[in-house]
Amino acid sequence: MRILGIDPGLGRMGWGVIEEEKSVIKAIAYDCIETPTKTTDEKRLLLIYTQLKKIIQRYQPDVMAIEQLFFSRNVTTAFMVGQARGVALLAAAQVGIEVITYAPSEVKLAVAGYGGAEKKQLGLMVKAILKLEILPKLDDTTDALAVAITHGFSGKLAQKIK
Amino acid sequence: MRILGIDPGLGRMGWGVIEEEKSVIKAIAYDCIETPTKTTDEKRLLLIYTQLKKIIQRYQPDVMAIEQLFFSRNVTTAFMVGQARGVALLAAAQVGIEVITYAPSEVKLAVAGYGGAEKKQLGLMVKAILKLEILPKLDDTTDALAVAITHGFSGKLAQKIK
Repeated sequence: MRILGIDPGLGRMGWGVIEEEKSVIKAIAYDCIETPTKTTDEKRLLLIYTQLKKIIQRYQPDVMAIEQLFFSRNVTTAFMVGQARGVALLAAAQVGIEVITYAPSEVKLAVAGYGGAEKKQLGLMVKAILKLEILPKLDDTTDALAVAITHGFSGKLAQKIK
Repeated sequence: MRILGIDPGLGRMGWGVIEEEKSVIKAIAYDCIETPTKTTDEKRLLLIYTQLKKIIQRYQPDVMAIEQLFFSRNVTTAFMVGQARGVALLAAAQVGIEVITYAPSEVKLAVAGYGGAEKKQLGLMVKAILKLEILPKLDDTTDALAVAITHGFSGKLAQKIK
């Protein structure tokens, strides 16, 4: 199963594609779509959407894993992140990819074994699980990989239960 | 100038197309895209996007007028509305329609002559300005027309200044 993890944001949209096969998880590709601050929201969204469509086209994921949004510094940030998330969900829906959402605590629990894990611990676990030589430059990319791993592990669990 | 006004929302996305020509404003078409609550966010967003693209294709607006989002009942609602707004902005950006945002108080000031105008007053003014026989069934549609009118009036003012 190929999983596209997404960490939504208007300025930075982290993404990571992983492959889960017979309980083995490996990283396929990961990066962060960055959009210029000095342009309109609609142009930034178009950039995110266009890039994301290319990623989906190229890596053909079976599922998109994305964090549920609960918290935000403020309402304005929530609107901004929501806009970017909407465009990501649309890109998935257009090609019929199933979208699975995970709460931030579920991601921390699945990846670091503890729902209250800190960002640094989460990063170290992502690095270890995917056997990466170095952590991605941006947290957004690491977070996208973390949510993808969460879905990979949930699949493994489901298989074990069967 | 043909203006598409948008009142963004995931459950209800109000829209209204008006034509402003030589200081005369008239309604061309208006309605509300409603999405079923018992489905996924991504399917609702796809529905909104598809409908909106058809509206843009059919009525060929020169500009999209949309409210700036500042307030929300809570962060969760802000994320939801943001998602829908993101998809609307994307639809505009894809065909290169300029997007103009107005603060809620600007809309009230332009349409009802008073930045603190109530919903009912705003509705009566929309009805009067567009010479509608009855108000649209849903407030979302009326609000979309109001933001379109706001842009229509701003254009008139700009012309007068010239």
